[in-house]
Amino acid sequence: MTLGAGVIRSQLRMADGRKIRYYDSTAATRTASDQRPEEPQPPIGEMRLDLLTNEWIAIAAHRQGRIFLPPKELCPLCPTTGDLLSEIPDSSYEVVVFDNRFPSLKNPESSWHLPEANGLVTEIPSAAGICEVVCFTADHGSSFGQLEPQQIRTVVEAWRDRTRELSNLDFVEQIFPFENRGEEIGVTLAHPHGQIYAYSFLPPRTEKMLRVATEYFAENNRVLLDDIIAREINDEVRIIAKNEHWIAYVPFAARYPFEIHVAPLVGVPDLATLSDDAADAFPTIAKEVLQRLDGVFGIPMAYIAAWHQAPVKQGRDVLRLHWQITSVRRAPGKLKYLAGSESAMGAFIMDMKPEQSATQLREVVLT
Amino acid sequence: MTLGAGVIRSQLRMADGRKIRYYDSTAATRTASDQRPEEPQPPIGEMRLDLLTNEWIAIAAHRQGRIFLPPKELCPLCPTTGDLLSEIPDSSYEVVVFDNRFPSLKNPESSWHLPEANGLVTEIPSAAGICEVVCFTADHGSSFGQLEPQQIRTVVEAWRDRTRELSNLDFVEQIFPFENRGEEIGVTLAHPHGQIYAYSFLPPRTEKMLRVATEYFAENNRVLLDDIIAREINDEVRIIAKNEHWIAYVPFAARYPFEIHVAPLVGVPDLATLSDDAADAFPTIAKEVLQRLDGVFGIPMAYIAAWHQAPVKQGRDVLRLHWQITSVRRAPGKLKYLAGSESAMGAFIMDMKPEQSATQLREVVLT
Repeated sequence: MTLGAGVIRSQLRMADGRKIRYYDSTAATRTASDQRPEEPQPPIGEMRLDLLTNEWIAIAAHRQGRIFLPPKELCPLCPTTGDLLSEIPDSSYEVVVFDNRFPSLKNPESSWHLPEANGLVTEIPSAAGICEVVCFTADHGSSFGQLEPQQIRTVVEAWRDRTRELSNLDFVEQIFPFENRGEEIGVTLAHPHGQIYAYSFLPPRTEKMLRVATEYFAENNRVLLDDIIAREINDEVRIIAKNEHWIAYVPFAARYPFEIHVAPLVGVPDLATLSDDAADAFPTIAKEVLQRLDGVFGIPMAYIAAWHQAPVKQGRDVLRLHWQITSVRRAPGKLKYLAGSESAMGAFIMDMKPEQSATQLREVVLT
Repeated sequence: MTLGAGVIRSQLRMADGRKIRYYDSTAATRTASDQRPEEPQPPIGEMRLDLLTNEWIAIAAHRQGRIFLPPKELCPLCPTTGDLLSEIPDSSYEVVVFDNRFPSLKNPESSWHLPEANGLVTEIPSAAGICEVVCFTADHGSSFGQLEPQQIRTVVEAWRDRTRELSNLDFVEQIFPFENRGEEIGVTLAHPHGQIYAYSFLPPRTEKMLRVATEYFAENNRVLLDDIIAREINDEVRIIAKNEHWIAYVPFAARYPFEIHVAPLVGVPDLATLSDDAADAFPTIAKEVLQRLDGVFGIPMAYIAAWHQAPVKQGRDVLRLHWQITSVRRAPGKLKYLAGSESAMGAFIMDMKPEQSATQLREVVLT
């Protein structure tokens, strides 16, 4: 199957039935079969409603057994070579996406439905959704920001493909590609990779952004993120990178010492609807932003890089695609912790002005 | 000034003008004056609206200079002795509350007002509010859970006094007494202490709980937390401690490996309206809960202990006082991190069932 930018997708099955998809920028025959013994699949978890906030909490009790920071020779995300039978049966790959072996959310039975989330809901639905792992490169020691532009372009095509396909599942409400990077934020595998969560409910933050953007549209007949970007362009002081199709800025009210939003200049609901031109222009701004981030303290910066997309079934006229990068590092030896005010009250306290972190990011000399 | 349980409050000024209040269970004369040179006060910060979520972010750019984990002989929360001129001028104390030297929120000028939080708000109000520090004991090496019941009772009286007094400030919307414990969550001072934040806006979590409880009341003519407690009593499996006036349970949809809610059996809006009988019965259940928490892994557990109260000016008929303790430790060497799903989407994934952590907490043998 050929996707945008000439990327070829090959889909295979792993020994235990999970799917793996190879994304290749040049012709490649992907037929290697998974030589590992078939392992039993973990059961689907459950979801409970937090009654005080009407928010769903997914419980995946089988995840405690996950492997923790294995050395390179045991890395499950490296290609299969010699004795190492990894998650990727082939001996090489460009980009792969496979079903997570320890999924927080799983494909539910066909009769599954989400109970209405209000009042004293005691029904416990199974934790419906999809969790996938995205390996950005076969090179264990690399990182997303160090990839060649062509390689990032292939990752974008994989994200777009997954967004399109997961949008067709009737139980999926929101699709969330993201990357956790760095031990400081609990990453358990060092190999450069991201994840995709397809939720069967609207995550609380999406729900809130949807409400705010809907109200804004009703009052102004304009899309909120369009106006935010116009304002950032006007203010100029928080912009850290720009090209013909994208803009990167520290938001006016950043929550983290280093927070960067990267958005297409022509707004779209999600990665699936992003133009090929914008997709082609993403790798250069992504590399610049991540190099600036690593350059601030001269050490690899731990971050969460999150794609906010419009939900699959609603709000597609008011919510807009953007990439949010947040880092908890506020100085070489210091992290920002989410303590009482942030964690229990949701009220963020920032130690640094957004204009200050934007200046630091702009002043990094790129190599 | 004599408060409940015979606690005597003495209020003095520090050298730089900040207020300090001593709370004593027995007659004590508090007149020691602050011998330190007067230091300039940090300026008030600012608040910006996160336009995507309509949430206020407080920016306190002066806080980067805070002292980090000083040794006992330099502890600013120990009593003043010999060369150490600490924040507490007296050479002994039971419980003190003083204005935070590095406040995230400060008393604003009288003309201050909060702009309406909707749309593209670019007004930047000053970060109005009050931040206080609560020293639980003069004993540097102790902890809240190790205090004598009488001492905890005095702390409760201090919390009640502060809630009452801060409620009278016209710019205050929400009062939040809390404790961060443990280096794992970024605590910068080891001395047993908590904090009180009085916000000039409704924190996002309070706002959400208010909306949910208001809707529940409109539909059922009942208070949500009353019904939640009735259900916990009925289910029984998540209860970990109980006395005549209080109940402690792991909530049905806990977000953290160890999360405990402690609520009075007769619901009240806040600490100021808590009955003396309930206040008297709090120390024993607080001690039991915290001893169980420390007992799970046999090591002092890092936690955030947060008092949720009804807001000062609204929702006092539907929101109820409760004490929420959350711990990120899921095993002796393992923490739960808030990664992509929790941090960027607000969607919590739990590795453990609430009934499992409740069982572990109940099985701790108390000494």
